[in-house]
Amino acid sequence: MKCVTCREPAIIDIRRHNANFCAEHFLEQCRRQVVKAIDEFEMIAPGERALVAVSGGKDSLAVWDLLTELGYDADGLYLGLGIGEYSDVSGRHARDFAAARGLKLLEVDLPERFGYDIPTGARAARRAPCSACGLSKRHLFDAVAVEEGYDVLVTGHNLDDEAAVLFGNTLHWHTEYLGRQLPVLAERDGFPRKVKPLVRLTEREMAAYCVVRGIDYLVDECPMAAGNRHLTYKEALNDIEKASPGAKHSFYFGFLARAAERFADEAETDREGLRACPTCGAPTTAETCAFCRLVERAGGARPDPSTATAVPVELGPTRAGAR
Amino acid sequence: MKCVTCREPAIIDIRRHNANFCAEHFLEQCRRQVVKAIDEFEMIAPGERALVAVSGGKDSLAVWDLLTELGYDADGLYLGLGIGEYSDVSGRHARDFAAARGLKLLEVDLPERFGYDIPTGARAARRAPCSACGLSKRHLFDAVAVEEGYDVLVTGHNLDDEAAVLFGNTLHWHTEYLGRQLPVLAERDGFPRKVKPLVRLTEREMAAYCVVRGIDYLVDECPMAAGNRHLTYKEALNDIEKASPGAKHSFYFGFLARAAERFADEAETDREGLRACPTCGAPTTAETCAFCRLVERAGGARPDPSTATAVPVELGPTRAGAR
Repeated sequence: MKCVTCREPAIIDIRRHNANFCAEHFLEQCRRQVVKAIDEFEMIAPGERALVAVSGGKDSLAVWDLLTELGYDADGLYLGLGIGEYSDVSGRHARDFAAARGLKLLEVDLPERFGYDIPTGARAARRAPCSACGLSKRHLFDAVAVEEGYDVLVTGHNLDDEAAVLFGNTLHWHTEYLGRQLPVLAERDGFPRKVKPLVRLTEREMAAYCVVRGIDYLVDECPMAAGNRHLTYKEALNDIEKASPGAKHSFYFGFLARAAERFADEAETDREGLRACPTCGAPTTAETCAFCRLVERAGGARPDPSTATAVPVELGPTRAGAR
Repeated sequence: MKCVTCREPAIIDIRRHNANFCAEHFLEQCRRQVVKAIDEFEMIAPGERALVAVSGGKDSLAVWDLLTELGYDADGLYLGLGIGEYSDVSGRHARDFAAARGLKLLEVDLPERFGYDIPTGARAARRAPCSACGLSKRHLFDAVAVEEGYDVLVTGHNLDDEAAVLFGNTLHWHTEYLGRQLPVLAERDGFPRKVKPLVRLTEREMAAYCVVRGIDYLVDECPMAAGNRHLTYKEALNDIEKASPGAKHSFYFGFLARAAERFADEAETDREGLRACPTCGAPTTAETCAFCRLVERAGGARPDPSTATAVPVELGPTRAGAR
């Protein structure tokens, strides 16, 4: 197995590209795919300030690393979700990564700031844990990006993630979600611009990227996600990808090229009547935004809009907690 | 396990309906689902003459049986595809079924009439066997239905078939096919009306239906289809159905309700410029229709439009061959 670029021994084969790469040219390949995604979908302009949603897993650390390598001005934001040891370890990975590279990591700790953690909060609010977690993350990433004046919020969603979400939305024909499952969502109505620079790269490639770059990431999947439908969809797509390499790529990019806009009207309608949540100021179509309702039902303190910003953390031997 | 209708011992559980049925009420359930499909999509009006595409497998024999039971005037059409013993046995099943019920079965034998069989014809024409076979079947079923003056052509496609085809078309975003993947295609431009009364019933249910009704069908899958993509899609969907009973139904019917019409324009465009094939008279957008090109490349005799009709077969101890 030889590198397609230099003919030296390869360390990875990428079947959908029908190509093998040595370590050096694999990193180059990853950077090339990120550049291609950023260019094709006009994700980030030169000089813009990016905020990366960082979980401590391979994807978020890889995208932060890749953007930094490519010369982008990118800070990180870590949310403490209170999922026991999983959260402790993931936070440590995020902080160690930032500290080693002198990067700025903001932090918001959910239990400390909003009085609930995902496992007990979800139970109290009678929501599935993944639903309460997704809602909390979306809200806080958006809020911090807007309040701290970032131009763009970056997430580490890779091709496997996007294909699996698209698969779920297609299986159920959730037409209101299909219209906005895009690699870039423009800034509007109080939402920041959101971009996914890893849509041309897979989970496996991101794991390999971290290994080659010496990035120490949290390998475990979230313990609360075990057995959720998303994983069933991923497995089904993996079986198909195995039989037809490139199937996921053509599913996702074919959707973007030939189907997404057919569902755009509904995504539009869904955003009509957005106004500011009276409690926290976030855009919502409801009386009170879903996050504030979750906070209330999850038994925590009401968020105070005047202090609802993330606190930059001075990275060093002792971590200043978010306050 | 008790029948949901009469509380007698059940013979089958249908997880997506969360219901079990005894033999009698299972047959009733199958008839009810066919009636529902026919009514909902206005497939066949009372008094219309239907032609059922019959392969000798469970689905085509079951749909023929169900339509007859429900009082419809339905003849069968069997195509001899020349796939070795598979074709010999499937033809026997079709003929035996028709003979036992005094039903009329038309036959067209591909090797005899057009000088090629699927395995060698596909090779000669450099087409995948399933592609050459599908093309031949579509053409001949359509042609015979139109020429023999039937009001509607019936096929035995079940929910598993439709969901798997939809899945394949969605995975590749074959938008030109998505717009016409409907349980009813209206008669137009020289095509007969085509309907799929089994879309609310699964493969497993059709096998059970045949067993309960004592219908002796060909169990084997076509030997040429082994390993094709369609089967990969079926397996992936089966895994999902197992995890979420009803997933296939909501995938297919959700598509019909909320997505199909978004792709209708392309199906429309695809039919622009249809005219009669100079060789056989079938509607085509090309110089010569794809079937006549296949016949020519497959090394057989050119079809003669003046004789290109199916010959009704007097069913009895000796079978009059199609001529």
